[in-house]
Amino acid sequence: MKANGLRVTGHCRGGMFPATDSTGLSAAIDDNKRAIDEAAALGADCLVMVVGGLPGASKDIAAARGMVADGLAAILPHARACAIPLAIEPLHPMYAADRACVNTLEQALDLCDALGAGTGVAIDVYHTWWDPKLSAQIARAGRNRQILAHHICDWLVPTRDLLLDRGMMGDGVIDLKWFRAEIERAGFHGPQEVEIFSAQNWWKRPGDDVIATCIERFRTVC
Amino acid sequence: MKANGLRVTGHCRGGMFPATDSTGLSAAIDDNKRAIDEAAALGADCLVMVVGGLPGASKDIAAARGMVADGLAAILPHARACAIPLAIEPLHPMYAADRACVNTLEQALDLCDALGAGTGVAIDVYHTWWDPKLSAQIARAGRNRQILAHHICDWLVPTRDLLLDRGMMGDGVIDLKWFRAEIERAGFHGPQEVEIFSAQNWWKRPGDDVIATCIERFRTVC
Repeated sequence: MKANGLRVTGHCRGGMFPATDSTGLSAAIDDNKRAIDEAAALGADCLVMVVGGLPGASKDIAAARGMVADGLAAILPHARACAIPLAIEPLHPMYAADRACVNTLEQALDLCDALGAGTGVAIDVYHTWWDPKLSAQIARAGRNRQILAHHICDWLVPTRDLLLDRGMMGDGVIDLKWFRAEIERAGFHGPQEVEIFSAQNWWKRPGDDVIATCIERFRTVC
Repeated sequence: MKANGLRVTGHCRGGMFPATDSTGLSAAIDDNKRAIDEAAALGADCLVMVVGGLPGASKDIAAARGMVADGLAAILPHARACAIPLAIEPLHPMYAADRACVNTLEQALDLCDALGAGTGVAIDVYHTWWDPKLSAQIARAGRNRQILAHHICDWLVPTRDLLLDRGMMGDGVIDLKWFRAEIERAGFHGPQEVEIFSAQNWWKRPGDDVIATCIERFRTVC
């Protein structure tokens, strides 16, 4: 890839730790170690962690969060040995049950503090824009150089689907320039990565048009 | 109502403070004062505040939050004079843009602390179950006797609509018994109020069946 001028900003994804039994928990750790190996083989800047939600029929989100902490601790030595930072991504609270039980930047950074070197956060505007503690937590992340990725898109009003109705930058309510300024003030000057799940709109358009729109919006609203 | 053995646990709703200009802000304050009068006339235990989201085309959620704080402060003297407590209801972050920019219990309690006597919170399991700080913030609310209402339903997986796909207690992932225990430990022993927005399921069923199911579930899973 390097010979072709390509860079893997992040390998997506590791995570999905919670399971209903010890076999499942072990399998998830093995999966994550393989993901770390893949990230290393790709020369990725980090491995993005979508940590997983409630396993099986569980209603115990505190237990799921414990499984996530334990899982991250179990794979961290391998990540460090491979020099692959783990980028914990807090997901929007509407995904707490089925995708990720880490739901605020504060919670993700508390995990990083407990785990230590080799961990950080992926900050996606879609998941975090609503958070009343956002500004303070971005600054906190910056102090320890824990910002590993910055994902962008927009929050549409109305949002018609919980997963696949993200907006193109500029079409929603997120103040993307403010967000970028906060992240840059915190010391992160890496790429803004566009991530627009949009089954009924952008995924139906020609790729060239989507890319052209991303570039235009990046220049005007991001 | 009292002659018929009825009780108004809460008048729903005041709020919707943010506006694009001073005329709109003033109109919202007048509306809220009328809602306080209504609550007093009904003998309601509290006025539930759904505070409002981003006004017009605004992307400035910090400004909207300021308008909410100012609006609450403006109506609070009238609420105190009428002996109607204001129950600030944090809404799920997926409603931050269009319904309420108060999105965590911690944020609502910070507002209560700033405003003082006559304010409290309405805790709806649907809006708050995901919150990693939930247990600590429920305890905090209890210390100052700020829990004014406890709303119940359930979070379905999958959730097919952001507004109108709430679940019947027991059909989703919320640990309602745990939740009730936390709230009772914090000193609130008022009613659990059922609030199930369900356009495609419960709203289509005969009312008697819905009530019977609520009662059965209340006895078994709440």
